Amino acid sequence: MEEEGKLKGEEAFIKTRVPPWTNQITLRSVVTSFVLSVVFIFIVCKLNFTTGIIPSLNVAAGLLGFAVIKSYTTLLSKCGLLKQPFTRQENTVIQTFVVASSGIAFSSGTGSYLIGMSPYIASQVDEGNTPINTKTLSLGWMFGFLFVVSFVGLFSIVPLRKLMILKYKLTYPSGTATALLVNSLHTPKGAKLAKKQVALLFKSFCGSFTFAFFQWFFTAGDGCGFSTFPTFGLKAYSKRFYFDFSSTYVGVGMICPYLVNVSLLLGAIISWGILWPWIEHKKGIWYSAELSASSLSGIQGYRVFTAIAMMLGDGLYHCIIMLIRVACNLTSQYLMAKGSSSFVMPEDVDQNSSDDNFDTQRRTEYFLKDEIPSWVALTGFVVLAVISIITVSHIFPQLKWYHVLIAYLIAPVLAFCNAYGCGLTDWSLASNYGKVAIIIFSSWVGLAKGGIIAGLASCGVMMSIVSTASDLMQDFKTGYLTLASPRSMFMSQVLGTATGCFVSPLIFWFFHNAYTIGDPQGSYPAPYGEVYRGVALIGAKGFSYLPKHCLQLAIVFFVLAVFINIVRDLLEHYETKYRIYRFVPNPMALAIPFYLGGYFAIDMCIGSLILFLWEKKNKQKSKDYAPALASGLICGDSLWSVPAAILSLAGANPPICMKFLSAAVNKKVDTFLSGGS
Amino acid sequence: MEEEGKLKGEEAFIKTRVPPWTNQITLRSVVTSFVLSVVFIFIVCKLNFTTGIIPSLNVAAGLLGFAVIKSYTTLLSKCGLLKQPFTRQENTVIQTFVVASSGIAFSSGTGSYLIGMSPYIASQVDEGNTPINTKTLSLGWMFGFLFVVSFVGLFSIVPLRKLMILKYKLTYPSGTATALLVNSLHTPKGAKLAKKQVALLFKSFCGSFTFAFFQWFFTAGDGCGFSTFPTFGLKAYSKRFYFDFSSTYVGVGMICPYLVNVSLLLGAIISWGILWPWIEHKKGIWYSAELSASSLSGIQGYRVFTAIAMMLGDGLYHCIIMLIRVACNLTSQYLMAKGSSSFVMPEDVDQNSSDDNFDTQRRTEYFLKDEIPSWVALTGFVVLAVISIITVSHIFPQLKWYHVLIAYLIAPVLAFCNAYGCGLTDWSLASNYGKVAIIIFSSWVGLAKGGIIAGLASCGVMMSIVSTASDLMQDFKTGYLTLASPRSMFMSQVLGTATGCFVSPLIFWFFHNAYTIGDPQGSYPAPYGEVYRGVALIGAKGFSYLPKHCLQLAIVFFVLAVFINIVRDLLEHYETKYRIYRFVPNPMALAIPFYLGGYFAIDMCIGSLILFLWEKKNKQKSKDYAPALASGLICGDSLWSVPAAILSLAGANPPICMKFLSAAVNKKVDTFLSGGS
Repeated sequence: MEEEGKLKGEEAFIKTRVPPWTNQITLRSVVTSFVLSVVFIFIVCKLNFTTGIIPSLNVAAGLLGFAVIKSYTTLLSKCGLLKQPFTRQENTVIQTFVVASSGIAFSSGTGSYLIGMSPYIASQVDEGNTPINTKTLSLGWMFGFLFVVSFVGLFSIVPLRKLMILKYKLTYPSGTATALLVNSLHTPKGAKLAKKQVALLFKSFCGSFTFAFFQWFFTAGDGCGFSTFPTFGLKAYSKRFYFDFSSTYVGVGMICPYLVNVSLLLGAIISWGILWPWIEHKKGIWYSAELSASSLSGIQGYRVFTAIAMMLGDGLYHCIIMLIRVACNLTSQYLMAKGSSSFVMPEDVDQNSSDDNFDTQRRTEYFLKDEIPSWVALTGFVVLAVISIITVSHIFPQLKWYHVLIAYLIAPVLAFCNAYGCGLTDWSLASNYGKVAIIIFSSWVGLAKGGIIAGLASCGVMMSIVSTASDLMQDFKTGYLTLASPRSMFMSQVLGTATGCFVSPLIFWFFHNAYTIGDPQGSYPAPYGEVYRGVALIGAKGFSYLPKHCLQLAIVFFVLAVFINIVRDLLEHYETKYRIYRFVPNPMALAIPFYLGGYFAIDMCIGSLILFLWEKKNKQKSKDYAPALASGLICGDSLWSVPAAILSLAGANPPICMKFLSAAVNKKVDTFLSGGS
Repeated sequence: MEEEGKLKGEEAFIKTRVPPWTNQITLRSVVTSFVLSVVFIFIVCKLNFTTGIIPSLNVAAGLLGFAVIKSYTTLLSKCGLLKQPFTRQENTVIQTFVVASSGIAFSSGTGSYLIGMSPYIASQVDEGNTPINTKTLSLGWMFGFLFVVSFVGLFSIVPLRKLMILKYKLTYPSGTATALLVNSLHTPKGAKLAKKQVALLFKSFCGSFTFAFFQWFFTAGDGCGFSTFPTFGLKAYSKRFYFDFSSTYVGVGMICPYLVNVSLLLGAIISWGILWPWIEHKKGIWYSAELSASSLSGIQGYRVFTAIAMMLGDGLYHCIIMLIRVACNLTSQYLMAKGSSSFVMPEDVDQNSSDDNFDTQRRTEYFLKDEIPSWVALTGFVVLAVISIITVSHIFPQLKWYHVLIAYLIAPVLAFCNAYGCGLTDWSLASNYGKVAIIIFSSWVGLAKGGIIAGLASCGVMMSIVSTASDLMQDFKTGYLTLASPRSMFMSQVLGTATGCFVSPLIFWFFHNAYTIGDPQGSYPAPYGEVYRGVALIGAKGFSYLPKHCLQLAIVFFVLAVFINIVRDLLEHYETKYRIYRFVPNPMALAIPFYLGGYFAIDMCIGSLILFLWEKKNKQKSKDYAPALASGLICGDSLWSVPAAILSLAGANPPICMKFLSAAVNKKVDTFLSGGS
């Protein structure tokens, strides 16, 4: 994890003054952010209602913010009216604002748990369509609910930022890519390497944008396009082993450490290559053969629950180790009569000294300059949680105050897990944690007492915190790498969250009135509405939904995750000759493909492979340029999602379907087509 | 056309002795050649019977020859028994032998004109199924026919070799690639650049081989795979504008001059982009709307006949200019009392002096060393033609002696055209010239007097000469670049031709007895059998088959080709400041896509683009390495055809079909598949 070494850009900015944090948030940046937020929320809502898959929009936000403000300031400076130059910190603030607001558009659950409460979705599911298990959507309570749950997440994550970014040095690939982009855009003239990096970034950006554009033409319909390319054959494809031509994840793979990418691939092989096929042999014995493929009582249950168990094992281990260390540190500091509330421990300095360089020093300095005291964060969290407990149990009578309280006790742990995992792999697993919450609270409340609504509402409470945690930690990473003040970042996140809570329901309302959201045959099927309701229904009917041996398997993987971590830490401590600990796989990375399959692990390993070959050919060059190339790949692909969404909104459908058929099916289709035409 | 400059390899061989021509043909090389010939003829026959599309096999022959002999000599030298080292000249001789013999497998028409004569194919066509218009196939007359017609081509092309290779400096991309490969394989140790070239060649070879292998998996069925990728949309695809992912033609594009590639693209735009759509608007007025798309009385007729007219215009212009120059030269030499029968004119030396370098000098020296006197070639041609005239008119009583005589008078001109065009673009148009012959002689003899058989037989006469001309000129280019003696090349071609004439009919006979060749529903439909018979039938029924205004159009393009050539030569002579003549398109290259469409022109332009960007980045490096990269691309893709054919013979079909459907058709197919399963 030495990406700081690779960036090497801070020297280029040595003569550029970093404005005080109050000057990093300007009126022009807030206005720009608000306009961009509306656009992005619109896009996210639209995606929520169509496929439910939301790409990372950090980079697009950073770039668009730059484009808007830069053209504005260039215009003003030509008229001689420019007072304050446009800085990269300001750019980061805009980016953070937009990410925070569009994050709310996702975690507000307008495409998942909120829509799942509606009577319309309830009418499509066999059971649980009772008044106590539905809630008619209305703007009023949605505003209230979002405002009380969304800000809690903000405060829960603030104290962790130093731990994640300074201590663990997590990569946060999207955040790093965005930062590099912002830095590149603002590099002062004369910095030759930076200029060359910008040139490469621009080239790879254009390349991946063009390639994404090209791919779009071949995606007319489901199962069409490059993302369904059975690169290793149809059988491997059915086990989700294929290269899906996503330049985003190739870029992410170039930014992530080798170990993470290899762990992902290993996890995919263990689960989709060995474990699931073996369990599928037990079909009809271990679980009913009549269940649909996506039922959590079938094979999907094994996938989801073992993955979650392993992630929880890993996350909990890190939480506990962290708590022990902090406790030890505080104790020793107390004993040495040196009061300090900082999370940065003395031994960190020793550990870092070897790869400490100018960039890291400067970045750390600015990251620690404008302190947000931990007591502020803690007080904020407690006060907001109390307000939230009262309000939420008022809006949803099915959910009692103690349910919400419990949720707020679990949430910070899960938020930590998610922020940590996202830092490693760029995957946010907020929706998984949300589903766990659904299961817990639905089953606790029970079907008769409105368990479905209770589960879905608690999912909202949980997801807001967990999703905010990973999104905003990405932003803090960006801020760290662009020398933006944590205070201005935090302010911007508060403003962004407020915007999100206000605009999201409005745009949802627009869609809700204009179209029938949730009609499986319509343009806006909102697929996750029914899925989330389904999970809640299973939860409400008791723990009997778990397929056979699933609990045991989950426990095995939970223990395994803890065990791997212990082995790794012991090796790191006692075996210093060969440093074998570097080769111990990462349990969080192992677990993610359990649920999703291996395709993105393959993308990321291809990124690793490119980097590896490049390093072998020219180590210095790869160090200097690989992050720029990777960022360009991520940026271009992500930015294409904006025009793609606009095209989709405009009703322009791709003209061609690139389809992959087995030889036998192809013969049938050919006969059908020649006969039919 | 400066490919000699790019190769730069001759200095590496300065210490390697070139053996005398008699030692270039050895027993081991003849035996190896014979075995490889049998394999290649088998492959070509098989391809003839399945799709009729035969890729260039030069490179595969060169490489396999090397592999066999090298392992043999390495074994012997380890035992201390090696007497004569394996030289690149010997390798070239093997390559030439195999190309000559497998060329016969194509030009023997076992998949086209010969099978078209059979009563079985005749029974599938409505008209012309009369005894006089069919001929039962038998081994006896096939041997005889092939032996008398195949050798004539050999002698017709020998006198032209100096003109094509030394004077016109034609590229012959396949031949050049093969030569580079052979040179690379035999480069003595210590030549650093050559070693690096070999490394790059090997890499690009492996890359393109692997890519071809990868592509194979997606070609289950017609219209499947990367070669049907509608890169620019389905509409452009229907006009044959697409990138077909053929690394062969990308490599060919890197070897061919920019002007040729741009001319090809221009020709494709003029014809498929403008002219054919315009003519298609006249459907039902200019030609019957009820005709099939491949009927020569319909739109296909315009394509074929305008293309042929333009090629003939260009070819004839060059023939006439050449004859005039030779006449002038001979006259002046006669006047100066300096007798010389050489085709190399004094002014050549002046023209070349500017880009003369060590390689060119050395190559020219060896190319001119072992003379094959023109009188030998001429005598051989005349004697063989007389034998052929007697024998052919004996085998096919429908074809009178004067018909065959006329064919032998036209053939050398067409052979010149084809060798010239092939040198420019790597396309051999032998089958086109063959079709012209069918039309001419079928219509001359008439249906009642056996015009169909007469046409098909004359096609054989013509194709043998024309196809041999281009194939063997490629070999002479290879020989020129590897310092192989023209005499050993010629001997090898004679032996190869004999092998081809003997083995081809035998392998055909094996297939003919084992399967039903020509059954449209079977595994071996031999599609060209019916096509050739169809052309002959149209010819035999008179010139009325030509669609409206087609003759006028053909004349326009014929004149245009001549006009472009005149303009170019005038500009070259009188306008020397800007050298505009370099930008005048090449009529032969313009005409080829008229018939075939733009896809391969796009491949080649992509090759040009890669070369252009490379040259811009690093001129010297691109000069040194581009030919190696290009050769690797051509080699790998071509060599894959061998395992592909073996897989096909073994009955192993590709498992997946990559299909491209329009959005509307895709919807239909999805409905069908979900309903049908």
